[in-house]
Amino acid sequence: MSIWKHKNLISLSELSAKELWFLLKTAKAFKGLRESKANKAKNVPVFQGKTVVNFFAEPSTRTRISFELSALRLGANVINISATMSSLQKGETLKDTALSLEALHADIIVLRHGSAGASQFLTKYLRSSIINAGDGSHEHPTQGLLDGFTIWEKHGRLEGLRVAIVGDILFSRVARSNIHLLVKLGAKVTLVGPSTLVPREFEAMGVQITHRMEDVLATTDVLNLLRIQYERQHKEYFPCMGEYISLFGLTKQRAARLKSGCLVMHPGPVNRGVEVDSEVVDGAKSVILEQVSNGIAVRTAVLYACGGGEVVRYGQSEDS
Amino acid sequence: MSIWKHKNLISLSELSAKELWFLLKTAKAFKGLRESKANKAKNVPVFQGKTVVNFFAEPSTRTRISFELSALRLGANVINISATMSSLQKGETLKDTALSLEALHADIIVLRHGSAGASQFLTKYLRSSIINAGDGSHEHPTQGLLDGFTIWEKHGRLEGLRVAIVGDILFSRVARSNIHLLVKLGAKVTLVGPSTLVPREFEAMGVQITHRMEDVLATTDVLNLLRIQYERQHKEYFPCMGEYISLFGLTKQRAARLKSGCLVMHPGPVNRGVEVDSEVVDGAKSVILEQVSNGIAVRTAVLYACGGGEVVRYGQSEDS
Amino acid sequence: MSIWKHKNLISLSELSAKELWFLLKTAKAFKGLRESKANKAKNVPVFQGKTVVNFFAEPSTRTRISFELSALRLGANVINISATMSSLQKGETLKDTALSLEALHADIIVLRHGSAGASQFLTKYLRSSIINAGDGSHEHPTQGLLDGFTIWEKHGRLEGLRVAIVGDILFSRVARSNIHLLVKLGAKVTLVGPSTLVPREFEAMGVQITHRMEDVLATTDVLNLLRIQYERQHKEYFPCMGEYISLFGLTKQRAARLKSGCLVMHPGPVNRGVEVDSEVVDGAKSVILEQVSNGIAVRTAVLYACGGGEVVRYGQSEDS
Repeated sequence: MSIWKHKNLISLSELSAKELWFLLKTAKAFKGLRESKANKAKNVPVFQGKTVVNFFAEPSTRTRISFELSALRLGANVINISATMSSLQKGETLKDTALSLEALHADIIVLRHGSAGASQFLTKYLRSSIINAGDGSHEHPTQGLLDGFTIWEKHGRLEGLRVAIVGDILFSRVARSNIHLLVKLGAKVTLVGPSTLVPREFEAMGVQITHRMEDVLATTDVLNLLRIQYERQHKEYFPCMGEYISLFGLTKQRAARLKSGCLVMHPGPVNRGVEVDSEVVDGAKSVILEQVSNGIAVRTAVLYACGGGEVVRYGQSEDS
Repeated sequence: MSIWKHKNLISLSELSAKELWFLLKTAKAFKGLRESKANKAKNVPVFQGKTVVNFFAEPSTRTRISFELSALRLGANVINISATMSSLQKGETLKDTALSLEALHADIIVLRHGSAGASQFLTKYLRSSIINAGDGSHEHPTQGLLDGFTIWEKHGRLEGLRVAIVGDILFSRVARSNIHLLVKLGAKVTLVGPSTLVPREFEAMGVQITHRMEDVLATTDVLNLLRIQYERQHKEYFPCMGEYISLFGLTKQRAARLKSGCLVMHPGPVNRGVEVDSEVVDGAKSVILEQVSNGIAVRTAVLYACGGGEVVRYGQSEDS
Repeated sequence: MSIWKHKNLISLSELSAKELWFLLKTAKAFKGLRESKANKAKNVPVFQGKTVVNFFAEPSTRTRISFELSALRLGANVINISATMSSLQKGETLKDTALSLEALHADIIVLRHGSAGASQFLTKYLRSSIINAGDGSHEHPTQGLLDGFTIWEKHGRLEGLRVAIVGDILFSRVARSNIHLLVKLGAKVTLVGPSTLVPREFEAMGVQITHRMEDVLATTDVLNLLRIQYERQHKEYFPCMGEYISLFGLTKQRAARLKSGCLVMHPGPVNRGVEVDSEVVDGAKSVILEQVSNGIAVRTAVLYACGGGEVVRYGQSEDS
């Protein structure tokens, strides 16, 4: 009955518009359940006896916790593994660690890994569901979904909206997942950043490119600011920080030129005063914390869909 | 109906005697529930669907585990965060991390942090309940409560009891929380230690001060020995270790001079042979492990009260 | 009624054949429960309200996770402690940390520790159940049990089987636990390795010894390959790696000489290309991942038996 046939979620590039809407609407149903006064206990224990493993080979707060809470809310047994605590320290390969997790009856493995393709690689060997929680510079599909969800919820639609994504596009898994979703669901995407970080090749994904923040400020419906990844070393591509801020930082002055309904988004953690001024982070246009909240609804939906849950009933019927 | 109106627990300095008794008696009720033969399952799942985040930016065994077990016992979904695993590593501020935790629907955030005021700071921004699990040298309110609980349970009262607190008072959050509780509930507190670590300023808190262990040994009803914090660097304040032991260590010889009913207490972990001789730690007067046990009852009560649980019925009616 | 009288599991050396069979059959019952279609929820919540502490002072993936999942499956509240997160960092002794865990109402403490005898040591002081999850080079009893379980399941018996254990016997806790179980249950054990790592003293345990892999290849029913522990420093005992592989590595060529029903076993994590060629790890004779899976059934049985669970009914009646 359901249009959802996947047990893995590796990238949004491989999903159809129908499948993307399915996940967004399932997320909406879970958000509704949580907010319902009738559902006092909040938990939806359809995964009792199932095991979800959160395997985070890179540090994370938001993503790890929202997967963990989503899995607990579904009633699963949840195991956390960080790289430093695991046998990866003993030189075991990712494949062998993952096969062991499957042998330990892991129904779903949520993987964050520094190498692009790590999650995809595992799907070749495992029957467990694999959820990509970020793989190198490749994709971060649940971030793309929660960004799309937040825009949909705030603007009531995605079709025809103008969305600008600003910053280090080249190395951003968040950008790639956003682009795939937004283009498929009919938004008009513009990438903004220095030419070293926003090369022309991205136009093949169906987006526009500009190297001037001023080109999008007055017209865009959404401004999604990527995090400057201090902790990764791509220095040769970067202008110095002062120059970056002067050209691409969302200062108060620039924020004043945004349309009244424009959403300011950021995947977090924010470097206040770098990508965006502190007042703007806390300002009326910012939906940064709502993105975090929506992460729970979206990740619950993804676990549920990939883990074989029955379809949750939902009211909306958009274009699915 | 309840006299408890707070959603946060930051310091015992701000609580009234009535409120302190409320928490102590609620703890007693939970301890009774646990020990009741009738309550086979031990858990009291009134927090189902609630999320408790244990955010420990400093290492801890007893405190972290007793909060975790208390929250599990109440049926909550529990998330653990240590500083090394979180986005604090990416340079995120405490405020932004905490706002994200709230956005992730954390109902209660239990925070241990190296800076005095960290928990208080968060209460300005968050609707979540904040429980201070130790903030720098400021307060450790649940430790103060469990110490008070242990004394009450053993002596049957607090009013009029003589309690000596020995050691590094100046930098001790445990001492401060103990002093606030004990003075408010009518105990007579004496601080003992070298003048560098027990300055006269403390007298303003309603306590007496001495720099000689011998002044309190024969008369005190409780001897609470603080931990020498090797891992913190306050060397300029400290006598050398040998001198400290010779002046303030609870040796077997000194312990022999204590009254028969005197309680020997320590917040742990004990440096055996430093603050107290090993035989005394394991001796008849020591209630050190009972303090640890009582930590569960007290922290369950605190989570329950701050998290909005209904009032547990309890038998005692002391002076509340 | 039950023949099981122990609250601790420290070593297989101290168990009788009857007791070993009791654990193996209880594990079989739990494996059956898990695989039963009727038991949809998979969990067997007989430990509700009990607390299981996983205290791992050395890194582990398989063992820690399978104990954690087993305890969750039994409905326990589960606490994880790693050495770096705990008060061991503050210089607390193992004994004092463990006494605190007991004071925190830990019903069962699962301990992995670098020192032989660490678990045994704790049993002298604690009323909590202690399960040894590996203590130095002494024993790793649940690994011995899961290896025995896997052999029993695959061959239908242990009596009379030829089992060869290959590698660093001298420093292997896995080898010792295997030897105790296998000899007691009637298998014929041969130890294989260089004379520095397989000294003649082991013959007193009722096993044969050879320093030539070729002596066992054609006749053994089980080949259990130990992990080369790069991370431990016993270099003076070791040939160089190339020489080790040429003499004792299970290459494809050597694997081709094994009997058709011979099982290739390894406690993991495997160093592919060292103890065993990669093709053999993934080949038809390998039961390495089944060992991992059986770890859950065996550890559930051990927790259940030591934690005072009622006897699970089981169908088999072998020789108990």
